[in-house]
Amino acid sequence: MRVCRHCGSRAGEVRVGYARMWLCRDCFTRFFERKVRRTLEKYRMLKGVSRLAVAVSGGKDSAALLAALARLELGIELAPIHLNLGIPGYSSECERKARELAEHLGLRLQVFKLEEEGFTVGMLGETRLRRRACAACSTVRRYWLNRLARELDAQAVATGHNLDDTVEVLFNAYFTGDLETIARLKPALPARGKLVARIKPLIALTEEEALEYAEILELPFTSVKCPLGKGSRSLRRKKLIETIAEEVPGYKHTFLSAHLRVFQPMAEEHAELGELGECRLCGEPSSQEVCGYCRVKSAVRAYLAS
Amino acid sequence: MRVCRHCGSRAGEVRVGYARMWLCRDCFTRFFERKVRRTLEKYRMLKGVSRLAVAVSGGKDSAALLAALARLELGIELAPIHLNLGIPGYSSECERKARELAEHLGLRLQVFKLEEEGFTVGMLGETRLRRRACAACSTVRRYWLNRLARELDAQAVATGHNLDDTVEVLFNAYFTGDLETIARLKPALPARGKLVARIKPLIALTEEEALEYAEILELPFTSVKCPLGKGSRSLRRKKLIETIAEEVPGYKHTFLSAHLRVFQPMAEEHAELGELGECRLCGEPSSQEVCGYCRVKSAVRAYLAS
Repeated sequence: MRVCRHCGSRAGEVRVGYARMWLCRDCFTRFFERKVRRTLEKYRMLKGVSRLAVAVSGGKDSAALLAALARLELGIELAPIHLNLGIPGYSSECERKARELAEHLGLRLQVFKLEEEGFTVGMLGETRLRRRACAACSTVRRYWLNRLARELDAQAVATGHNLDDTVEVLFNAYFTGDLETIARLKPALPARGKLVARIKPLIALTEEEALEYAEILELPFTSVKCPLGKGSRSLRRKKLIETIAEEVPGYKHTFLSAHLRVFQPMAEEHAELGELGECRLCGEPSSQEVCGYCRVKSAVRAYLAS
Repeated sequence: MRVCRHCGSRAGEVRVGYARMWLCRDCFTRFFERKVRRTLEKYRMLKGVSRLAVAVSGGKDSAALLAALARLELGIELAPIHLNLGIPGYSSECERKARELAEHLGLRLQVFKLEEEGFTVGMLGETRLRRRACAACSTVRRYWLNRLARELDAQAVATGHNLDDTVEVLFNAYFTGDLETIARLKPALPARGKLVARIKPLIALTEEEALEYAEILELPFTSVKCPLGKGSRSLRRKKLIETIAEEVPGYKHTFLSAHLRVFQPMAEEHAELGELGECRLCGEPSSQEVCGYCRVKSAVRAYLAS
């Protein structure tokens, strides 16, 4: 048994790989929560927020997020939201875990079922959007999170995006020169018209840390992976980034900090962010005449009707 | 035997991996030289150049560079320069191959022996610069290439830096946020005071292509690796970049083009390039009071005297 770097007890069970540090379970829990608090403060994520919508997927990251926010006793109201996307063999298990998590933390969960809209993400696999199912699903999630958060009068939505998610996006954005993504990828995006502010309190914590935290606290979460994402580019990229991080110590943390310190502000100055209007069909915020969500929805419905 | 994509002959022996293309040896040679010509033209590398100094190390890249420049019949005078850095078990073989290459191409080679300066790169291994031997050696090479090129009245120096060399530098510069390197890494750097213009005609060609070209033309070059560079970060990074390129098709070409199209111009605007003065000791161009070369030289000499 290793010695805990923080308290010196002989219970150093948890390894924080990039910091070459062992911690006991209690100290790791405090370490994790302190990092969340520091991220909230550093990027002024809760400025003007009295009710915070929290996206809860049923997975480890959002479980860790919701639990850390609850345990930090921030003096704000937490409004967890779960989207049931209707993916066979996956969504019902996700909803079950999200409900268990909210109950465990004594919070009331708002559940939205996409099938009420007359389609599901599961159906995407059968349409021409099949190859871009992950992108379309992400459009659907962003849309409903924003809409539900606004309807709940929340001043911001928190998502469980961790450091690994972020570096995966950065990796692609940098080698392809995607300045718009670079300009927009920030820990906190302020509100803009009908777009509720978005915050990522886990952005400086790795996937491994979120998993460790969720396991130590015995939070309910599912380890089932989305069947539509199997073999996806996103998963292969994450593996690749793991390989890079093994060869380049500190790769993920250094990349994020270089991004936020050097490139993001520069890109934001240069990139022209499109005007934000409202979708002709649903009235939700959109940079185009018809928003991405309405386009996905009509593509699936057109397929079903044919 | 595969079919050559360009001439249709059944002699497709050479695989251009990233383009999923097989070519016969003659067509590959033309393909390589056409790419060199296109790079020279695209970045106006030979504007105002009647005499071009060419750095010849004895390795495959500079052999390919010098041969391609000679065979393209550009109507300019080529002045190959070789620096003998005094690395035991390496430099004499490099010099031999550089001499053979120049003779093979009917060019007069200028050889400079660093030992005339009272030290060698080989000695770096014994000083406190040991761990940064590759960086110190690169300072020495840049210094002498510039100085010799200027003394030869050349208007520019060409080096054999290929796409792999470039992406290795970019990889580090981007994830660490090294804006100065990003601003400076260009295919052609104009003359600046006593600094002769520098061009990289192989920047869009991979290491593999340079090797293939040098082998097809049976150019004299050494495959011996520098003993000081063994296990160096640079070599490990190149391996890592190979791993990335296997997972991400077109990674290297896309990264270079994103760099040149998006980030480099933006960084150049933002980065403050230091004033270029002259070294108090040697009078060569330097952004500090004493240039990097004189600092390396005095460090080695101090060590030898102790």
